Amino acid sequence: MVSTLKRLLIGRPLKSTELGEQKLNKRKALAILSSDALSSVAYGPEQILIALLAIGSAAFWYSIPIGIGVLILLTALILSYRQIIFAYPYGGGAYIVSKGNLGVKPGLVAGASLLVDYILTVAVSVSAGTDALTSAFPSLHGHTVIIAVFFVIILTILNLRGVRESATILAYPVYLFVAALVMLIVAGLFNILTGHAVPVTHSAIGTPIAGISLFLLLKAFASGCSALTGVEAISNAIPNFKDPAPSNAAKTLIAMGVILGILFSGIVFLAYYYGITPSTEVTVVSQLGETLFGRNVIYYFIQGTTALILILAANTGYSAFPLLAVNLAKDKFIPRMFTIRGDRLGYSNGILFLGFFSILLIVAFSGQTSRLIPLYAIGVFIPFTLSQTGMIVKWMRERPKGWISKLIINSIGALISFIVVVMFLLTKFSQIWPILIFLPLIIWFFYKIYMHYMAVADQLRVSLAEPTFPIKGNIIIIPVSGVTRVVENALNYARSLSPNQIIAVTIAFDKEEEKRFEEKWEKWHTGIRLVTLFSLHRSIVQPLSKFIDVIEHKALDNKYQVTVLIPEFIPRKGWQHILHNQSSLLIRSFLLNRKNVVVATIPYHLQK
Amino acid sequence: MVSTLKRLLIGRPLKSTELGEQKLNKRKALAILSSDALSSVAYGPEQILIALLAIGSAAFWYSIPIGIGVLILLTALILSYRQIIFAYPYGGGAYIVSKGNLGVKPGLVAGASLLVDYILTVAVSVSAGTDALTSAFPSLHGHTVIIAVFFVIILTILNLRGVRESATILAYPVYLFVAALVMLIVAGLFNILTGHAVPVTHSAIGTPIAGISLFLLLKAFASGCSALTGVEAISNAIPNFKDPAPSNAAKTLIAMGVILGILFSGIVFLAYYYGITPSTEVTVVSQLGETLFGRNVIYYFIQGTTALILILAANTGYSAFPLLAVNLAKDKFIPRMFTIRGDRLGYSNGILFLGFFSILLIVAFSGQTSRLIPLYAIGVFIPFTLSQTGMIVKWMRERPKGWISKLIINSIGALISFIVVVMFLLTKFSQIWPILIFLPLIIWFFYKIYMHYMAVADQLRVSLAEPTFPIKGNIIIIPVSGVTRVVENALNYARSLSPNQIIAVTIAFDKEEEKRFEEKWEKWHTGIRLVTLFSLHRSIVQPLSKFIDVIEHKALDNKYQVTVLIPEFIPRKGWQHILHNQSSLLIRSFLLNRKNVVVATIPYHLQK
Repeated sequence: MVSTLKRLLIGRPLKSTELGEQKLNKRKALAILSSDALSSVAYGPEQILIALLAIGSAAFWYSIPIGIGVLILLTALILSYRQIIFAYPYGGGAYIVSKGNLGVKPGLVAGASLLVDYILTVAVSVSAGTDALTSAFPSLHGHTVIIAVFFVIILTILNLRGVRESATILAYPVYLFVAALVMLIVAGLFNILTGHAVPVTHSAIGTPIAGISLFLLLKAFASGCSALTGVEAISNAIPNFKDPAPSNAAKTLIAMGVILGILFSGIVFLAYYYGITPSTEVTVVSQLGETLFGRNVIYYFIQGTTALILILAANTGYSAFPLLAVNLAKDKFIPRMFTIRGDRLGYSNGILFLGFFSILLIVAFSGQTSRLIPLYAIGVFIPFTLSQTGMIVKWMRERPKGWISKLIINSIGALISFIVVVMFLLTKFSQIWPILIFLPLIIWFFYKIYMHYMAVADQLRVSLAEPTFPIKGNIIIIPVSGVTRVVENALNYARSLSPNQIIAVTIAFDKEEEKRFEEKWEKWHTGIRLVTLFSLHRSIVQPLSKFIDVIEHKALDNKYQVTVLIPEFIPRKGWQHILHNQSSLLIRSFLLNRKNVVVATIPYHLQK
Repeated sequence: MVSTLKRLLIGRPLKSTELGEQKLNKRKALAILSSDALSSVAYGPEQILIALLAIGSAAFWYSIPIGIGVLILLTALILSYRQIIFAYPYGGGAYIVSKGNLGVKPGLVAGASLLVDYILTVAVSVSAGTDALTSAFPSLHGHTVIIAVFFVIILTILNLRGVRESATILAYPVYLFVAALVMLIVAGLFNILTGHAVPVTHSAIGTPIAGISLFLLLKAFASGCSALTGVEAISNAIPNFKDPAPSNAAKTLIAMGVILGILFSGIVFLAYYYGITPSTEVTVVSQLGETLFGRNVIYYFIQGTTALILILAANTGYSAFPLLAVNLAKDKFIPRMFTIRGDRLGYSNGILFLGFFSILLIVAFSGQTSRLIPLYAIGVFIPFTLSQTGMIVKWMRERPKGWISKLIINSIGALISFIVVVMFLLTKFSQIWPILIFLPLIIWFFYKIYMHYMAVADQLRVSLAEPTFPIKGNIIIIPVSGVTRVVENALNYARSLSPNQIIAVTIAFDKEEEKRFEEKWEKWHTGIRLVTLFSLHRSIVQPLSKFIDVIEHKALDNKYQVTVLIPEFIPRKGWQHILHNQSSLLIRSFLLNRKNVVVATIPYHLQK
């Protein structure tokens, strides 16, 4: 039944040969790989306003200079990643770039941050997508967590079925979203330029605000940087591009940067000009849409495409996490099971792991996007910093043609990313401290796992010099509880193996029982020696275990192997098991962990 | 850790020889065996008033004639059971008496009713005890279910530890309860006789009441019969009495009957005279106590002893249920596991089963005593009827000296019990219909289980004429996944058994892997043939399973036995298991249900 359900949800198993990849052209690549980055504009500008709201809405004019700061950072990052694309044409994830240039430890820091971060990608994007929905349909507002969890489950199932990254259908929502936001921005600007709109800003740019501090501005800037999450996606996926892959990828990256910059600036500016105040119930984009169009079909189109692209952005977590997990598992830092392809050729364990932990996060944070974003953003900027630093080291070591200008670009990228990390630590410590506990913990796990795999490989290596324990003979022990067909079957089997010795063992609870059974055994004429153990505490396992200890000890001296054969009768129907004392199961589970004893069940199947 | 907790809760295991029983003298026996019956007066009279309340409190005077009816029934039952005591000096439970005289089917009806009934004994007594507590401490009123469940858990643990039925400490609460109620009755009567109390009855005896019907009176009478539950306890426990056991038991039974009669009449009369109205919050006994003494120390003494004796009454369920289960299990009607003595020599499975289902009932009925009582009472009167009828048959068949008067007494007992059963069915059908579903279902289970045990015994019988499948040779299959110590160990073991053939099987997911492994195996020079199976769907189990099918088919033709040896390495620490693909576990669990294949794991324990 479980298997039927599985087939229904994820479909028939696929053959390994059905694994095929289609190369992406620039237009499709832009759509598919930038959903994470572009969708960030749905929450990034809002985060700036939320940070400024601590002083009051009069401080909102600062969103303009802060937005310009974010644009500068965006430019630096795009240029830096463009260089990574050319330097790592086979995909330069932060884990690979950091490990390759800075060493294993920084690589693991990047890897651990990214693992956590992809989980947060899913949690944040799905929560933000749910916000877009509940802004449009306020009656859903009380059910945020359930809706978000439902989306994660759907995404997990779809990914277990296997979503082709190249599926054309995934491209539409991204272009629709860009179209919707461009429409919003154009309409907003048009109104302003034609004088239809009167500015309702809370204060003019440059108004001095009481109580504003550098700390608060840095905090608002750090918040705004959450709009930049996802810009690294293209540089990780170069092998998916059509040839010449690096140059196509670089062009796509630039295009994405330009679109991201336009959408971000437009929303920041309009939110300021139309005097939008962030609220927990309705998103900034939703408020803008409502102000410009009213709650008509265009408004719902904007909200719908926003929700859709955010959920698609979550899907990039599902593409990236399992691949990173495979890399880490191949390097033996996480369990081997992450390298196994499931029935539908996806790395199912990674997908399930990601789904489970995203749901955990959504539930733990009650689906509140703004509480998740700081953790998400710092998790992004740590690997940003590490991979840019890795590039600096690479240029200094390799010194290719024009390396100085490349070095400068990556140095600026590294520096700004590092400053953002520090700003986060300084201004949002109360929200991001968990990462300072989890990152070291995860890295410690990485090392523990690595050490274990190394120790195992060492112990399993076959060496002709030291062969394993040579077996000179066999002793078979058969626990018996009656003169039955089941026991007869086990005795026959034991005899067929022609061991050096067969011992039948029975456990008696009282003297009378002992005598009766011994007489019965005598009459049976099996030719096999019966040993009766006496159990005052009515335990079967303990006396048997002690007896095996004794035999095992003697056997080891002679390099004999001890085997316990457990006769077991198997009823025809499952429910009938509860009608029988599960002694054989009990004995088996008790003996399975013994060091030098082989345990086998000799089944006797009932016909009726 | 589980085992430490177990030791802490139920104590060290006891030796079989520590099983000892102490015979009871009459005084102690009365206390221990009558707690169930005597405690019924805590809820019996109240049930009459609740039934009459349907018409109005003016109808309460009918409780006097109805009470007299119950007393007559009590007398008949006591006399009838007195005869059972002498006829079955080794204990005459309804199951044994019915099965012996009426046949297996009526015996099973009695047995099934009793099984259900002992569960209800626990549920009703504990709920009523909780009512006595919450009447005294109204702040506990919202927590009835939790308190009741807590008491059941405590009782279960105590019984798993082993409560000696003979423990003197169990005798005190019963006598204290009798003393408390006698005090209550005497004080009530004293006030009346000395003229201190003015009758506040709702109506004089004989007042015509509009709307009263025979149906309602019968219903009230049936409700009142719940005060008689538990009177059979003494007749089941005769072997526990000091010699001459039957005559001692008979005297104890009469004493119990007299005490029960006095307490019941007293409470019915006082409740009428003092105009008590039943309420869901405060019990009738509690109201009487409060009216007569106020909420002083005597009131709390009455409530305390009532709660205590009710919980002790639940304990009689714990004595009776496991013993009945042993009888039914020995007759092969319920699973054999009920005959096994636990660590502390109690029949732990019966105790746990009883505890679990009582909790289920308490939760299902929200701990409402008056909703549980009808089910309880009909469950008592069905076996009453059957055992009395059994006695009629016995007298007619055996015709001992004076059999006619004995016949008459049991006939009256049987008739009245039967009438009560019919009354229950007629007047309380809406509350007791579940019993009409569950009883037949349980009896059907009894038969199913019995048939299974018979079929098994038949199939397991060893016959020299038809010996089991003779084994002429052995084929050993070893699934291998690498050239490692683990595999080496398994190959050594297989060789030591000198089978006719050893086949190593490996599963490859692609051609390259296949070739690489085959070359490696060749170089290893094991002398053992390697078969490579190809799995396009990346499943290990399916191709292996098909391969074993083929080998098994060939083997059967030659009367060869197929054995699968699974090499398995066992890491040093439990958590390390998740770092390895559990292929050996998977293969084992998949193969364990195969008919003619023996499966053994060859463990290789890692040192580091």
